[in-house]
Amino acid sequence: MSELPRTSREVRLVAVPSGLPRPGDFAVADTPLPAPGDGEVLVRNRFFHVFAALRTLLGGGVEGAPFPPLRPGDTLFGPAVGEVVAAPGDSGVWPGDLVFHWLGWREYAVMAAADCSPLDDALPDPIMHLAQGRTVYGALTRGAKVRPGDTVFVSGGAGSVGSLAGRIARLLGAERVIGSTGSPEKAKRMVAELGYDAAVVRGAGPLTEQLATAAPGGIDVLFDNVGGEELRAAVATARPGARFVLVGALSGQLAESGSGTTAPVELDSYQLIIKRITMLGYSALDDPGVQAEWIDRFGGWARSGALGFPHVRVDGIENGPRALHEMMSGRHLGTVVVSL
Amino acid sequence: MSELPRTSREVRLVAVPSGLPRPGDFAVADTPLPAPGDGEVLVRNRFFHVFAALRTLLGGGVEGAPFPPLRPGDTLFGPAVGEVVAAPGDSGVWPGDLVFHWLGWREYAVMAAADCSPLDDALPDPIMHLAQGRTVYGALTRGAKVRPGDTVFVSGGAGSVGSLAGRIARLLGAERVIGSTGSPEKAKRMVAELGYDAAVVRGAGPLTEQLATAAPGGIDVLFDNVGGEELRAAVATARPGARFVLVGALSGQLAESGSGTTAPVELDSYQLIIKRITMLGYSALDDPGVQAEWIDRFGGWARSGALGFPHVRVDGIENGPRALHEMMSGRHLGTVVVSL
Repeated sequence: MSELPRTSREVRLVAVPSGLPRPGDFAVADTPLPAPGDGEVLVRNRFFHVFAALRTLLGGGVEGAPFPPLRPGDTLFGPAVGEVVAAPGDSGVWPGDLVFHWLGWREYAVMAAADCSPLDDALPDPIMHLAQGRTVYGALTRGAKVRPGDTVFVSGGAGSVGSLAGRIARLLGAERVIGSTGSPEKAKRMVAELGYDAAVVRGAGPLTEQLATAAPGGIDVLFDNVGGEELRAAVATARPGARFVLVGALSGQLAESGSGTTAPVELDSYQLIIKRITMLGYSALDDPGVQAEWIDRFGGWARSGALGFPHVRVDGIENGPRALHEMMSGRHLGTVVVSL
Repeated sequence: MSELPRTSREVRLVAVPSGLPRPGDFAVADTPLPAPGDGEVLVRNRFFHVFAALRTLLGGGVEGAPFPPLRPGDTLFGPAVGEVVAAPGDSGVWPGDLVFHWLGWREYAVMAAADCSPLDDALPDPIMHLAQGRTVYGALTRGAKVRPGDTVFVSGGAGSVGSLAGRIARLLGAERVIGSTGSPEKAKRMVAELGYDAAVVRGAGPLTEQLATAAPGGIDVLFDNVGGEELRAAVATARPGARFVLVGALSGQLAESGSGTTAPVELDSYQLIIKRITMLGYSALDDPGVQAEWIDRFGGWARSGALGFPHVRVDGIENGPRALHEMMSGRHLGTVVVSL
C-alpha cells in the first residue's frame, strides 16, 4: 500500500452570510486527515456539486429539512464523486472504485463504507452522477404525471434542477416547455441551449402577463423550484385540472435579505378550487424506487444523445467559494461543479 | 286537470349588497306564472336550500365559476325539492313526482323536464336531497382519501358543507375530527351536536396555536371550506404527507368588505415541500360517478341512524331574505332550508 495522504484541504464556513454568500465568508483550510479504520474508506474527490440547498443551510436551516444548518467552523458538504484510495477491512468497496457520497468541499474524505455508493456504468460519464435528475424525474413522472401534449412551466428553469426539468419534460412528451429565470440573457440562452420554447424573466414586468403570452392556452403542469411570484403566475395561467409539483423554494433565497428558510406566496384558494388545481410537495427521498428507474432512463437518453448534463465546471477547490457565490447569484446555466 | 296557479311569489335581488346581504337588498314579488308547454313541468316547491355560493354570485361572480353572477332584478336560485303539479306532453315526469332542481327561491317553477331529477327513495326523507353530501363525500373519498386513524380538520365545520364533512369523515374511519367556526357558542354546539372532538374559533386567538392544541399529533387531512387563516393553520399543523382538499373559500366572503370572489391566503411553499403536502381543488361536478355512490351510502347511514341531515328550517318564502342574512352571518348550524 502506497503512502496515504496526511492532510486535506477543505472549505469551511467562517461567518454566517447575511445575504448572498461571498467568498470572504469561507476559508480554504488544511486539515489533518485520519487514516481510515476497518469498514471505512478514504476517497479522493474528483468533483463536487455546488448545490442550492447550501443557502438554506447557511441561513440557519429549516425545521424538518433533511440537513442540519451550517455553523461557523463547519466544513461544507454536498454531493460528490470520488475515487476510493484505501479501504481497509472487508467493506465491499475497493481502491480504484468510483463512488458517490455527500462529503464534497474537501480534497479527501474519510467515511464509513456504507456512506458511499459505488457508481454503476449505466451513465457514460461519472460526472453525470451529480445531476439532480432523480428528484426531477420523480417529480415529473410521479408528482405532476406529465403526459404527451402538456404545456409545462419550469420555474427556475436555468438552474441545476430546472435545466434538467425542461429537458426531461420534453422527453416525457410535453408539447410546449416554458421556463423562468432572473435575466434576459439567461432567458435567451435557455431557448438556444436548453431547449425551452420560451422563457419568462423575473423583474421584467408582471410574470403573469409574460406567462400568458408564452403559454396562450394556459399551462397543464408547473414544476416549481421557486415559489413566490412564479407560483402565483402559474395559478393565474393554469388550465383546469393543472398539476403543480413543488420541489424547491428559491424565492426565499433569491432576495439579498432572504433567510432562505421560508418562501411566502399569496395565493387565491378560490382559484385553486375553480380550476381544480392539484399542488403537491415532492421529494425523491420518499420514493426509493425512483432512483433505479431514473438511472436506467438517464443512461439510455444520455447514450442516444437525447439528454446531457448541463453544467459549468470550475477547477480547483480554492475556487469553490467563488463558485458558490456565482451559483447563488444566478450567473450560470445548469449545475455548478467544482473539479479537483 | 285542476286549475293551475297563475302567479307565484319569488325572491329577487333589488340591490347588490356591499357587504353581508341584508333583507332590504331583496324583494318578495308576485309574478305571472306561464303555463308549462310540452316537455316542460310546473313544480310547486316544498323546500329550498339557502346556499353559500349565493354570496359570490351576489358579489359579481367569478370567471370560470359554475354559475353566472346575479344582477338587480334577477330571481335568486338554488337547490330545491318540489312536487310536480303539471307535466304536459311526454316528458317522463308525472304530477305527484317529487323532484330535485335548481329553481329555488320561488313558490312555483316552470322548467324543462330535463332540468329536474325525480327523487329516488334511497333517502328516508325528501329534504335530505338538499344535503350537499355529494361534494363532501367525493372530496373526502376521492380528494383527501380519508383513511382509518386519520386526524381530520374541517374548516367552516358548522356550516352546510362542514357539518356533513365532520360526520362523514368519522364514518370513513377518522380517529379525531376537529372543526373551525366563527364563535365560541357554535364551537360548543359543534362538539355537543355535530360530533366533533374539538372545535377552534376564528378570532379567539391564533388559529395555529388553537389547532396545535386540538391536534397535538398534527393533522392528516384538511377539508377546506374557508381558506385564509384556516388554511395557513392547517399547513403549520400538518403531518408529513398530509392531504388537503379545497372545496370552498368562505374566507373571501366572511369579511364585511369581502367581494366573495377571491380568497387570498399567504402560504409558505417551503413548508408544502418539506411536509410533502398534497393540496387539491375538488368539485363533484367533475366526478359524475360519485352521486350514485353517495346516495347509496347516505341512504344506508341515514336509515341506520349513523348520519342525519343537520339543518335549520325557516318557514315561508317571505322569510327567505332573513334566512340568507342569518346564514351569511354564521348564525346557524348545518344547512339553512326555507320551507314553503
